[in-house]
Amino acid sequence: MDNIKVIAFDADDTLWANEPIFQSAEEQCKQLLEEYVEPKVLSEKLYETEIKNLNLFGYGIKGFTLSLIETAIELSGDKVNGEEIQKIIDLGKEMIQHPVELLPGVEETLKTLEEDYTLMILTKGDLFDQESKIARSGLDPHFRWIEIVSEKNESVYNQILRRYDLHPSEFLMVGNSLKSDVLPVKGVGAHAIHIPFHVTWDHESVDLSETESNGYHQLDDISLVPKFIKSES
Amino acid sequence: MDNIKVIAFDADDTLWANEPIFQSAEEQCKQLLEEYVEPKVLSEKLYETEIKNLNLFGYGIKGFTLSLIETAIELSGDKVNGEEIQKIIDLGKEMIQHPVELLPGVEETLKTLEEDYTLMILTKGDLFDQESKIARSGLDPHFRWIEIVSEKNESVYNQILRRYDLHPSEFLMVGNSLKSDVLPVKGVGAHAIHIPFHVTWDHESVDLSETESNGYHQLDDISLVPKFIKSES
Repeated sequence: MDNIKVIAFDADDTLWANEPIFQSAEEQCKQLLEEYVEPKVLSEKLYETEIKNLNLFGYGIKGFTLSLIETAIELSGDKVNGEEIQKIIDLGKEMIQHPVELLPGVEETLKTLEEDYTLMILTKGDLFDQESKIARSGLDPHFRWIEIVSEKNESVYNQILRRYDLHPSEFLMVGNSLKSDVLPVKGVGAHAIHIPFHVTWDHESVDLSETESNGYHQLDDISLVPKFIKSES
Repeated sequence: MDNIKVIAFDADDTLWANEPIFQSAEEQCKQLLEEYVEPKVLSEKLYETEIKNLNLFGYGIKGFTLSLIETAIELSGDKVNGEEIQKIIDLGKEMIQHPVELLPGVEETLKTLEEDYTLMILTKGDLFDQESKIARSGLDPHFRWIEIVSEKNESVYNQILRRYDLHPSEFLMVGNSLKSDVLPVKGVGAHAIHIPFHVTWDHESVDLSETESNGYHQLDDISLVPKFIKSES
């Protein structure tokens, strides 16, 4: 790793907690609709609706909220009323305004790494929502570049390398998603460190057999990154 | 204008029609809810809800759809039912999938200009939705750079100039919105051409007195841009 110039960080569930906010909203929705729907059935149908809508809505809270409303209407047999749907919209608004809670060790790690490397945020999702979280996180000054993309695949990583005129060996991605932050990065020949988060959205899960032939590094905690890079250089 | 190196185009209502899709959805929603709400009242309340939600949802169809649902619930006194709300969500989905209709002269103009200038799309709105429209427009090959931003103000234009290492005199913005495409561009000292579209969302309208002290160029049609640049050089 002695060539590395740029370290890019995923944001949601790497720099701050995100998936717990979605899971908590889902739990609240289950309670709201418990007279119409079995909680387990709601979870399954919601996931099915989200995946069905993904090519129209993309990632993010607004699409999630619309999928929640659709699921509620379908599972209640149209019985869900206006007041309850407004409560679902209000849940979505609360999610958007949820305080940004930095994960342990993030700020110190960025301070250490910015002395030797150019740091970047590379996150996927809703542009408006991600910008708002970056601003509210207070982490902005540590990052020279911010890239918000609609998907993280090999083609997008190649675009990023071209845009910043980087050889793959000069680029390290750090993130919690094997599917978005690790496998496509290894696929373009760059470096990746996987830092698992305690919960992962099903859609971001990958079959471990996919990773077997694909050497990548895994650390338990973001604060181990600086020492690890040194040890590998 | 003899210094110009980069010409940036707004997308919605500059390269393709957009506002008519929103207006048509609003009309369909008025018909859907006519047993509960006076059409005029719906328009007024919808605009009020959109503006109130703008700092949470940003621009784009998903936020518009959520605002439509909120407006329907409020104005119907909770009487709107699940089936009707599903129809509003389906309206939103139709908007997202609406064919991208290029405005007259766009393709020829881009072909002429790309011979002498680097072309860029600089559009605000929902990342996922804008990327999808750019892909479906088929215009992608004409543009070297694509920038999708959440807001177009002086600070964002300054960031763009820095990112591409451009002096303001080297940058020309072409678009239909005085508020987003012209005034902030003049504010940072770059060039702007205003090409009015026949309908403008109220939020993008500006008081003409704001523009008086601010010399900018206005053309009736995008196909006049190449000749105009030559005449000003």
